[in-house]
Amino acid sequence: MNYLLTMLFDGTAYHGWQRQENAVTVQEKLEDAVFQLFGQRVSATGCSRTDAGVHAKCFKANFHAEKERSMDTVVSGLNFYLPDDICVTGCEIVPDDFNARFSCDSKEYHYVFYDSPVRNPFYLNRAAHCKHRLDDELMDREAKSYIGKHDFTAFCAAGAAVRSNVRTVKNAGVFRENDKVIFYVEADGFLYNMVRIMAGTLLYIDEGKIECGSIPSIISSKDRIRAGKTVPPEGLYLNKVIFKGE
Amino acid sequence: MNYLLTMLFDGTAYHGWQRQENAVTVQEKLEDAVFQLFGQRVSATGCSRTDAGVHAKCFKANFHAEKERSMDTVVSGLNFYLPDDICVTGCEIVPDDFNARFSCDSKEYHYVFYDSPVRNPFYLNRAAHCKHRLDDELMDREAKSYIGKHDFTAFCAAGAAVRSNVRTVKNAGVFRENDKVIFYVEADGFLYNMVRIMAGTLLYIDEGKIECGSIPSIISSKDRIRAGKTVPPEGLYLNKVIFKGE
Repeated sequence: MNYLLTMLFDGTAYHGWQRQENAVTVQEKLEDAVFQLFGQRVSATGCSRTDAGVHAKCFKANFHAEKERSMDTVVSGLNFYLPDDICVTGCEIVPDDFNARFSCDSKEYHYVFYDSPVRNPFYLNRAAHCKHRLDDELMDREAKSYIGKHDFTAFCAAGAAVRSNVRTVKNAGVFRENDKVIFYVEADGFLYNMVRIMAGTLLYIDEGKIECGSIPSIISSKDRIRAGKTVPPEGLYLNKVIFKGE
Repeated sequence: MNYLLTMLFDGTAYHGWQRQENAVTVQEKLEDAVFQLFGQRVSATGCSRTDAGVHAKCFKANFHAEKERSMDTVVSGLNFYLPDDICVTGCEIVPDDFNARFSCDSKEYHYVFYDSPVRNPFYLNRAAHCKHRLDDELMDREAKSYIGKHDFTAFCAAGAAVRSNVRTVKNAGVFRENDKVIFYVEADGFLYNMVRIMAGTLLYIDEGKIECGSIPSIISSKDRIRAGKTVPPEGLYLNKVIFKGE
């Protein structure tokens, strides 16, 4: 049986999704819980690697197990064995060749800032703090320049080796919810640190450190130096995953 | 100078406000920060003792210090020395005889439940989990019975010794925000565990363990056994403090 899980996790305590030597990851915690419930060691496939400290409001992972279990048993059983900062919200049986990574058509991330003169303990590890008021309308207009099929080399952390840096951004923008300012971006794929550099570039534009209207020229420069800083991981959430055919 | 602070804290790591032997409290952390900034050991007075694990969105505390400091220096200086889960959002100078506890006219607490079939990591230590959907409209109607001047002995944890158990509830009700169901109650004072027992009674009414319409008779019984359970501290927030003359 190929089980596809929908998960939610607070990534603060984890070195991302992917199993690593000498670091605790979400994949390891999930595989341990599957072993407890199914009595079988499996290798789970996640829809995305996530960086250390990054959160997921909707993460998809699949694994193959011999035993058949009801969907309710999988959800409640895994939640019983998982730590409090990870939970499974849904489960379905998918075709044997379904793979949460390669069957993925697009993903949406949210980057959450909050603006207030002093830091707020309730946003600790959950959002990035800005002391000045952010101009969310300006940031929204600027974020629209990310939309389209582009080579995003300028928005990729150095040292990442992938075949192509071309990605298609389907939607992007910024909206405010009280003191939260949220950058959303949906694309067919993301380069290493891409969302955090995109969010950092919008922050620099808001702060006047990068000129308004310059995102198209930063993209075409393919020069990482011209984009903004990489904002910290605690503001980043994987928000939605869309599979092919959905 | 008598300094009055407005504070915000995540109470998860603390044994409440009040200084204790062998337990870390918010008062101790604040007094340590004041010592760092003013070079003087002070005794801070809080508007309320709060229980272990209880949060505050708006807490008021005052202390007397010899040195004069600007309001900006007090706010940013104390935040520099305070741990990440406690912050000062405002400061003002008040008359010498002002006392954050005795100058208090009324306080409002929120008790936050969230209802979803599975637990949510993002509400960990921040709200109480209910697996079934809560009937917030029913709970709101029932909560109105708390309003008025009553002897709240039935809503007071055993062993608490106070002169009188009569308190005046000025306002009470329940509202929903997505999957959060929030009980609010404003009163001139609260007995030990009073808000958590009031919230637990509304929960029992929702679950059919206590009959609808029985809050007036529970109040008049003065019998703790007839009220609902004491719900856990992580859902409780001190939300507003109103001083005399405000």
